[in-house]
Amino acid sequence: MINTHTGPQPADFTDVRAANLAVVLRFVRENAPCSRADIAASTGLNKATVSSLVADLVDRRLLRETGLTENRVGRPATMLVLDGSPYAAIGIEVNADHLTAVAIDLAGTELLSWRRSFPGATATPGQAVAAVAALARRVLGRMEKEGRRVLGIAVAVPGLVDLTGSVRTAPNLGWRDVDLAGDLTRALRHPGFPVLVDNDANLAVLAEHRFGPHGGAGNVVFLTGGVGVGAGVIMDGRLRRGGRGFAGEIGHIPVDPGGAECRCGRRGCLEAVAGVRAVLRDTAPDATPAELEPELDEVVRLARAGDPATIATLTAVGGALGRGVAVLANLLNPDVVILGGHYVRLAPWVLPAARDELARGSLASEAGGTVLVESTLGYGAAALGAAARLMDAIDSGHLPAQT
Amino acid sequence: MINTHTGPQPADFTDVRAANLAVVLRFVRENAPCSRADIAASTGLNKATVSSLVADLVDRRLLRETGLTENRVGRPATMLVLDGSPYAAIGIEVNADHLTAVAIDLAGTELLSWRRSFPGATATPGQAVAAVAALARRVLGRMEKEGRRVLGIAVAVPGLVDLTGSVRTAPNLGWRDVDLAGDLTRALRHPGFPVLVDNDANLAVLAEHRFGPHGGAGNVVFLTGGVGVGAGVIMDGRLRRGGRGFAGEIGHIPVDPGGAECRCGRRGCLEAVAGVRAVLRDTAPDATPAELEPELDEVVRLARAGDPATIATLTAVGGALGRGVAVLANLLNPDVVILGGHYVRLAPWVLPAARDELARGSLASEAGGTVLVESTLGYGAAALGAAARLMDAIDSGHLPAQT
Repeated sequence: MINTHTGPQPADFTDVRAANLAVVLRFVRENAPCSRADIAASTGLNKATVSSLVADLVDRRLLRETGLTENRVGRPATMLVLDGSPYAAIGIEVNADHLTAVAIDLAGTELLSWRRSFPGATATPGQAVAAVAALARRVLGRMEKEGRRVLGIAVAVPGLVDLTGSVRTAPNLGWRDVDLAGDLTRALRHPGFPVLVDNDANLAVLAEHRFGPHGGAGNVVFLTGGVGVGAGVIMDGRLRRGGRGFAGEIGHIPVDPGGAECRCGRRGCLEAVAGVRAVLRDTAPDATPAELEPELDEVVRLARAGDPATIATLTAVGGALGRGVAVLANLLNPDVVILGGHYVRLAPWVLPAARDELARGSLASEAGGTVLVESTLGYGAAALGAAARLMDAIDSGHLPAQT
Repeated sequence: MINTHTGPQPADFTDVRAANLAVVLRFVRENAPCSRADIAASTGLNKATVSSLVADLVDRRLLRETGLTENRVGRPATMLVLDGSPYAAIGIEVNADHLTAVAIDLAGTELLSWRRSFPGATATPGQAVAAVAALARRVLGRMEKEGRRVLGIAVAVPGLVDLTGSVRTAPNLGWRDVDLAGDLTRALRHPGFPVLVDNDANLAVLAEHRFGPHGGAGNVVFLTGGVGVGAGVIMDGRLRRGGRGFAGEIGHIPVDPGGAECRCGRRGCLEAVAGVRAVLRDTAPDATPAELEPELDEVVRLARAGDPATIATLTAVGGALGRGVAVLANLLNPDVVILGGHYVRLAPWVLPAARDELARGSLASEAGGTVLVESTLGYGAAALGAAARLMDAIDSGHLPAQT
């Protein structure tokens, strides 16, 4: 692929072919069913080139021909759709109280979605590696039984993950300097496919970008809504990680000077006044990680019943969240900010106040165009994003070898 | 150019040639003097292709041959260097109290650098357009006299500039919804080259990226240091503007809840506690824009003389600035944050406290690798960046037509 950003890179013909394979694959992903002529007309590639590229993609079982023909004047055309069914990409999410596993094929079809309770907040890193490896082995067994080729496993972790996949710190898991990618590769006995580790918010925003209703937007921020609040940042269509991979740490933005004390020692940080702990401040301030979900169920029940104290708490949380989102919006001017995790269930009561504060705190009119919404992907967004990250490699031209 | 971010784009051979012309041009920019063989060896392009590309660039007077030969075994090689001398890119910066104009050739050599006092804070937009047009005409006259071809004029404005070059709001100029690019094009009677308008911090960070000592860094933030504080953000080697072009508005990050009142009505915003007004709070709280520089001269004099009150003020400003930079660093994880404008002169007293607060407020150890430094480009960084933006177009393959 030609890259004009990182210094001189030649554009030789191998690059051009890899880039064009990726162009055709992405075109079919977005426009299937479509014909070879459609591809040629829309991409500007000539028909002979398109035929050769399509043949290659069919050989790799990334595309397949359907019996369908288009209604058109002249000879009926064979239509192409995505295949990718022989492949599986696996995403696993590590949380303070559970693990999630997702497998998808290259057309984005979900092959399985599992959830296991897991004492993330108290387990040692070694126990966590063993639990993740055990879950991964079960998923791999299922994929093998189905005759699928596994492209890789990506693991989402709520913490600072450096560019090598090492977890520098994950406060809610009690981890420091855990080489999860290396440990897991060894636990899986060097499985011959990539094992990646990434920040959960980074992976969730990749899932939103690929599968969510705002996928067309070039500038997207995802906010995880748990005990911690982290951001995944897409600008100009790509995940932005910063120099060492630590971008997105929004949890300690000062939002409310008189607010609750944060575990960082200061007062009024975003996650102290707008995270799950703030939601449960009055009703269950000492809930353990495993108790958070039942307690939140109760909050939702009370809010639905119109309980004034609950609604006041959620409105205050929404306002604090909106002030944090305004900082983000002024700095990054995203098209959309997507609230994930527990915020999804709380959205009916949290979002209105958050939107008001976003509008009030934005320097540009109409919040600079930034729209604030809740995620539609559910709790497993980061696991789905982990699998999506493996798909992204394919779409940017790193195709699986022919089998 | 092949673009894998914004949907299918063909990679045909015209694209490849344009991209390769840009590859050769950038290689020579970074490695001159060098031979055709050096280019071929480093870029992977074959020698015949390199010869053809170089011939094209010599025809356009973007490269020229020198009499130099390399010490090597075998036939001596003709060495190539950048030319670009027949061209000029013009940058103009609009400030609250002055205008700056810079012209550079395509090798980055400064052709002129002018500064004119100008009552930006009180002038109407119409008066500002007239003043900028008058300055531009003088620069154009000089370039014409020198026989140079003008590639364009870019204007830096301290405010929200949308993607069409329209200034939505510029608080320190008192502007709202000024179509500066259009007005200036008309005032210059449709000069036949592009007239661009952009945010001053955006252009300054482009200047740092091209001409500054941290140009090799992929993730760079520039902070303007004036009455307002704005950020220009480069991530992964490219300026990031956000969805509507409003990214970089960092001035109203809450930094000090008990701090000074901000013109936005809240207390303790970054620019209220760390901008120029905070520096002059005790000595000249009511200084007009034209008086800021002489007052700052006095602050520098007192600081140099070791005046305790002055040093305490500058240390407090540095601490507040560092808290704001920590928010930025946690969110974007830049390699470097560069302080511009008035901060450059104040750096000896402001930087130590700012660095302490950055380290304290960063979630990652060692501030996540973020280095905080002062600009070495001086006051005209935005004007220089305006010219650099025109050079960027050339370097990404939009070459001037042959003359």
